[in-house]
Amino acid sequence: MAEDRSAGGERERLSRVAAQRLSLYLRCLSGWPAEDGRASSVQIARAVGVSDAQVRRDLAALGHLGRRGFGYEARELVPAIRTALGIDRTWRAVLVGVGNLARALLRYRGFQAQGFDIVGLFDSDPQKHGERVGDFAVEPVERLSPRVAELGAELAVLTVPAEAAQSVADVLTTAGVRGILNFAPVLLRLPPRVRLVTVDLAVQLEQLAFLVQLGESESRDEAPE
Amino acid sequence: MAEDRSAGGERERLSRVAAQRLSLYLRCLSGWPAEDGRASSVQIARAVGVSDAQVRRDLAALGHLGRRGFGYEARELVPAIRTALGIDRTWRAVLVGVGNLARALLRYRGFQAQGFDIVGLFDSDPQKHGERVGDFAVEPVERLSPRVAELGAELAVLTVPAEAAQSVADVLTTAGVRGILNFAPVLLRLPPRVRLVTVDLAVQLEQLAFLVQLGESESRDEAPE
Repeated sequence: MAEDRSAGGERERLSRVAAQRLSLYLRCLSGWPAEDGRASSVQIARAVGVSDAQVRRDLAALGHLGRRGFGYEARELVPAIRTALGIDRTWRAVLVGVGNLARALLRYRGFQAQGFDIVGLFDSDPQKHGERVGDFAVEPVERLSPRVAELGAELAVLTVPAEAAQSVADVLTTAGVRGILNFAPVLLRLPPRVRLVTVDLAVQLEQLAFLVQLGESESRDEAPE
Repeated sequence: MAEDRSAGGERERLSRVAAQRLSLYLRCLSGWPAEDGRASSVQIARAVGVSDAQVRRDLAALGHLGRRGFGYEARELVPAIRTALGIDRTWRAVLVGVGNLARALLRYRGFQAQGFDIVGLFDSDPQKHGERVGDFAVEPVERLSPRVAELGAELAVLTVPAEAAQSVADVLTTAGVRGILNFAPVLLRLPPRVRLVTVDLAVQLEQLAFLVQLGESESRDEAPE
C-alpha cells in the first residue's frame, strides 16, 4: 500500500506492492484510448482490477495530480509514475545466457520502451561467441567482470541454466552490478546491496493452478494485495 | 497471509499471497540438501526470505505437520504443499504462439516437474504448421477450439504478440479453458470463470529498477507482503 510521503519527490516510503500497482497503471495508461487524454480513477481501476479508492490513494501519494470530477491527465500521470518507479531515466543492463528465453527477451519491445537498454550479451558456450544476436555480438562470460564496468551496466538479466546461476550472479556482484532480474529457477544469495527480482515460471503456473482449483469469483490477478 | 481453516483438506481460505509463499517453500524444499530430510522453519525462512513465524503460520494452516524442536519432514511437507496448491495432479495445457519464448518454456524442466503437461502447440503462421517443436507438431490456431476439448486441456499458455492476445484468449475461453498464463504485455479481459495470471516482463524489470533506486537494506524480493 502507498504510505504517507512527507514531501514531493521522495520515494523512500513507496512500498513494493504499491510500486507493482503503479507499473500496472502505467501499462494501462500507455495504451489509453481516451480521446481527450483524461483518465478517471474508476477507469484505471477497472482496467487494472483494483478498487478506485486504491487508485486514488496510490496516485495521491505522487502529488497533486487529479481533480475531483475531472480525473487525471494521462500526460501528467505517466511521467509522475515513471519518476516514482525510478524509470524516468535509462537503465543499462547486460544479459547473461543467450538461449531461447534471451532471444525472446531481446525482441520484447517493452524493455526499451520502458527505458531499459541491453548493452551487452554474454554466454559460456564458445560456439556462441561472436554470434550476432540483435545489435550485439555474444561475448565470453569470462569477460563479464571488466565489461560490466566498461559498458556502464547497472543491471543484469540472468537467463542461464539453474546450475550456473549462482556463480554468474557472484561474478556480476563483484563486477558492481546493482540489480539482477533472475529467470533461473533458483533462490540466489546476494549481498544486501544487490537487488534481486526472480521470475520463476513454475511459480506463476502454480499460481494459475491454485486459482483454477480455488474457483473463486474474482478473476483478475493484476491487483496485488 | 494464511487464514484459519476449519478442517483439513479445505483450501478455500488460503490466500493468493500465501499460495505464492507455499510455491517458494516448495521450490526450496525440492532442492533440500539436508541429510536427514528434516527442515526447520528457520532454515526455510532463511532460504526463502520471510520470517520463521510466517513459515510456521503458513505450514500450520496445512495441518499438523511439524513438531516443536524437530522441524518438518520434507517428505511429508512436499505433498502437503502440493495438495494445498492444487498441483497434486497433472494439469494439461495448450501453448499458443510458438516463438522464442515458447521454445524457451518448452525446454523449461520446471513445468513438467511441477505437474504441468503441455499437450499441444498452436500458431497463426502457416510456415510453422507441421513443424516439430519438442514432442509436438505445431497446429493452426484456427484448430484451437475443437482441439482444446479433444486434448483435455484445462489451461493455456499464451505467448502470442500483444495485438493477438485478446482474440486468442476469447477463442480459448469459448473452447472451455479454465485458466490462462499470459505473457503478452496486455491486460486481458476474461469472464470470471476463467482465471488469469499475467507475467509482464517489463513490470518485473521496473520492480528491479524501483528496488535499486530505492536502495533499502533488505535485498530479497521473494517474500510477498
